[in-house]
Amino acid sequence: MQYLPPALEQLVEHFNRLPGIGAKSAQRLAFYVLDLPDQEAESFAQAILEVKRSITCCPVCQNLTEGEGPCALCSSFKRDHSIVCVVADPKDVIAMERSGEYNGLYHVLHGVLSPMNHVGPDDLRISQLVQRVASGEVQEVIMATNPDTEGETTAMYISRLLKPFGVKITRLAYGVPVGSHLEYADDATLARALEGRREM
Amino acid sequence: MQYLPPALEQLVEHFNRLPGIGAKSAQRLAFYVLDLPDQEAESFAQAILEVKRSITCCPVCQNLTEGEGPCALCSSFKRDHSIVCVVADPKDVIAMERSGEYNGLYHVLHGVLSPMNHVGPDDLRISQLVQRVASGEVQEVIMATNPDTEGETTAMYISRLLKPFGVKITRLAYGVPVGSHLEYADDATLARALEGRREM
Repeated sequence: MQYLPPALEQLVEHFNRLPGIGAKSAQRLAFYVLDLPDQEAESFAQAILEVKRSITCCPVCQNLTEGEGPCALCSSFKRDHSIVCVVADPKDVIAMERSGEYNGLYHVLHGVLSPMNHVGPDDLRISQLVQRVASGEVQEVIMATNPDTEGETTAMYISRLLKPFGVKITRLAYGVPVGSHLEYADDATLARALEGRREM
Repeated sequence: MQYLPPALEQLVEHFNRLPGIGAKSAQRLAFYVLDLPDQEAESFAQAILEVKRSITCCPVCQNLTEGEGPCALCSSFKRDHSIVCVVADPKDVIAMERSGEYNGLYHVLHGVLSPMNHVGPDDLRISQLVQRVASGEVQEVIMATNPDTEGETTAMYISRLLKPFGVKITRLAYGVPVGSHLEYADDATLARALEGRREM
């Protein structure tokens, strides 16, 4: 990485800091940017600044949005406002929406409880969820945190907090992934899939 | 990729346009930038603008440099100014320097002759090389274009142009695997190739 002009070297380092971009890729990307038309490069730089400037959290569901006021989903009349799906991360909203099966609203926690990483209830958007449920419009809360230890713990913690409000609290079903092979499924998943079997 | 705020969506698209970055990676990178500290994101954006603003070509060797005047290599007294190594791309200079075997100067063509892609002699920095050789300081020109068809053709074309000036013209030995690219060659191979260079 020697003999690069400092400005180019600096861009290489920035790319290298991105997740999954090694030294070779970073160099290739920096050279690519150098060869971009001026306008294209400026628009790339602007996009980076813009994302930091304009992206905020929806005051209702805490998902990423732009500007003030509730996000597009929270202000849509086509969505069922009585169901709230609780996810850990904005990316999980995208995954759920891609399934095309869900028509309710979301609540994004922005993380999961993790004593190991010093993440406690106050670091997540849990109080905002409690407020939403307390307001009375919500009838069902679907806990859709990841099916791992931390996601499980977070789901348990929140479901206990919400119990007093008398809302229905559900959890995403466990089972074998569609299109997968039984022989590769782990024991825990198979056990849960058996446990949750349904009549055909 | 739906349900992302437009600013985020735009950044995802910019990342997606980079070589080797697919839709999934682009999304991950955009989210990563969103989570960066403000200062870090600004410095990333600045680095992109800076690279376009400040990177120029050295008036002597045509390699990338910053500011006016000859680059660090061309103005170094430690280098042998009588040998010029002709490469297609700035990345090739980096590869050659990494081998640690070369102490002369470079000439960067910024491409190779390629009738298929409508790249002719006038699209490359060939006239500048001829001028350098004509000035009389150069005693040996090492053709180090890639050992593929286009690199070979370019080397042949240039060696014919330079023959009348009576300089020694050599070609990297076929230590470099045929059909590969210089920038990916390992140091030992490059060193052997330099060592075994032969007169054209």
